[in-house]
Amino acid sequence: MAAVTFRLRRSLSWGDCDPAGIIFYPTYYRWMDAATWSLLAECGWPGTRMREEHLSIPLLDSQCAFVASPRFGDEIEVRSTLERIGRSSFALRHEFFLLGEDRVLARGMEARVWARYEAGPGTTLRSTPVPDELRAALGGTPA
Amino acid sequence: MAAVTFRLRRSLSWGDCDPAGIIFYPTYYRWMDAATWSLLAECGWPGTRMREEHLSIPLLDSQCAFVASPRFGDEIEVRSTLERIGRSSFALRHEFFLLGEDRVLARGMEARVWARYEAGPGTTLRSTPVPDELRAALGGTPA
Amino acid sequence: MAAVTFRLRRSLSWGDCDPAGIIFYPTYYRWMDAATWSLLAECGWPGTRMREEHLSIPLLDSQCAFVASPRFGDEIEVRSTLERIGRSSFALRHEFFLLGEDRVLARGMEARVWARYEAGPGTTLRSTPVPDELRAALGGTPA
Amino acid sequence: MAAVTFRLRRSLSWGDCDPAGIIFYPTYYRWMDAATWSLLAECGWPGTRMREEHLSIPLLDSQCAFVASPRFGDEIEVRSTLERIGRSSFALRHEFFLLGEDRVLARGMEARVWARYEAGPGTTLRSTPVPDELRAALGGTPA
Repeated sequence: MAAVTFRLRRSLSWGDCDPAGIIFYPTYYRWMDAATWSLLAECGWPGTRMREEHLSIPLLDSQCAFVASPRFGDEIEVRSTLERIGRSSFALRHEFFLLGEDRVLARGMEARVWARYEAGPGTTLRSTPVPDELRAALGGTPA
Repeated sequence: MAAVTFRLRRSLSWGDCDPAGIIFYPTYYRWMDAATWSLLAECGWPGTRMREEHLSIPLLDSQCAFVASPRFGDEIEVRSTLERIGRSSFALRHEFFLLGEDRVLARGMEARVWARYEAGPGTTLRSTPVPDELRAALGGTPA
Repeated sequence: MAAVTFRLRRSLSWGDCDPAGIIFYPTYYRWMDAATWSLLAECGWPGTRMREEHLSIPLLDSQCAFVASPRFGDEIEVRSTLERIGRSSFALRHEFFLLGEDRVLARGMEARVWARYEAGPGTTLRSTPVPDELRAALGGTPA
Repeated sequence: MAAVTFRLRRSLSWGDCDPAGIIFYPTYYRWMDAATWSLLAECGWPGTRMREEHLSIPLLDSQCAFVASPRFGDEIEVRSTLERIGRSSFALRHEFFLLGEDRVLARGMEARVWARYEAGPGTTLRSTPVPDELRAALGGTPA
């Protein structure tokens, strides 16, 4: 089983920094969320398909440890890989690197459920098995 | 016709400030949006009712002029009043004051449409007449 | 040693919700950050003092588990307590409750360092001992 | 005098959309701010230089009119051009287009001052003449 690494680039904006002149830390979580939606799109589940098929990916847990703080204007790469996958849940590891220097900035994790709205958007979410095609695209072992 | 002033308090958070140590200016627009939803709730149209009746308030235009910049920890009051109201559109004036000193920080405006989703949430929005009860609560002249 | 609980209220804004109609999860981290700055102010270290004394509170780690999702308009209370405190670091537990129902929404944690800028704002941060007065105000045991 | 158009691409993230499933409108202002810092960098004034030379670009006014609303996942191009430039102030026009379709989404404006901190970061800002080199790079007429 080959691990697959998904990459997303972000530039640290003025408004994503705090008065200390460094990244306002919840920004890392916004980027993890964006990285997750982006890798789903790469795997064949873009936002349009998620919406049409009444799918969503609610969170169970999230975590991030901070190593070094980027400043305004820094270019960052988010590298995301599957950490574990169950029948209807999965955890992704997101690591943040300063481009060029290849220096790690932070290491994060998100645990999510693969879920479907029972009766259309906004209704109750029920967990549903992760499709095999997605499981394979993420580099996970078959269920 | 008595003008009605709606008030909303906000404390300027660390994360709403930029590396210059003052408010990141789009924060004013987030507060204008919050002030508008808050005054609709006071007038009898809270978020739950808006959702149930398939109503929304899309924007036409917005503007804000900046006079003085609050810093982290400052307490601010948003004062909102109706500027003009048509059949299905309305404009609100939002003024931002530093609490205690009663010093104006910024003066903004939003022009919005009163609209309904044609076929449920997420479908096409159609403008619809502002209800008389809302018009009165905002202090507007009858249509 | 009596545990001290600090409380902060937040109303879930329209713009803090995502297309699923519920809280966009990084909002919890923005609230944890706000709760931390708020409790420091209550303990005698408001933002103005932090700035004047060249103090900051960089993060080591953060985490949040999600139980139930608030919707637009919901009123939330953040309850923060000291989880552990060392010579120059401390961890806070932040729990999120739906007001009125007293239902837990999420449980988070932040681990931070008490630090001082070596040579004024924006320069290198060095960890420094948590002041005894702050330690006591947080309900921590003496160093 | 040739007008110069600066371009910045943005992908509309899940967290930048509201429960209506479209862009949360203050996001446009965050993008205008990012576009302004980006074009300054292209003109030779990146964030590092701004910081080293104690320069900042406080706002006088901002405005945005909304034509059509992008949805989650849409790719957007911000096109920025100089609208007017004085001795120490300038206004930029920012137009938002849906990539591929070349359809205008919104039209915004920012008026800013070219300013310097009198006595280092965080101190009082004083307007100062826009450098000729920057004026030329923006496509403005000589002062």
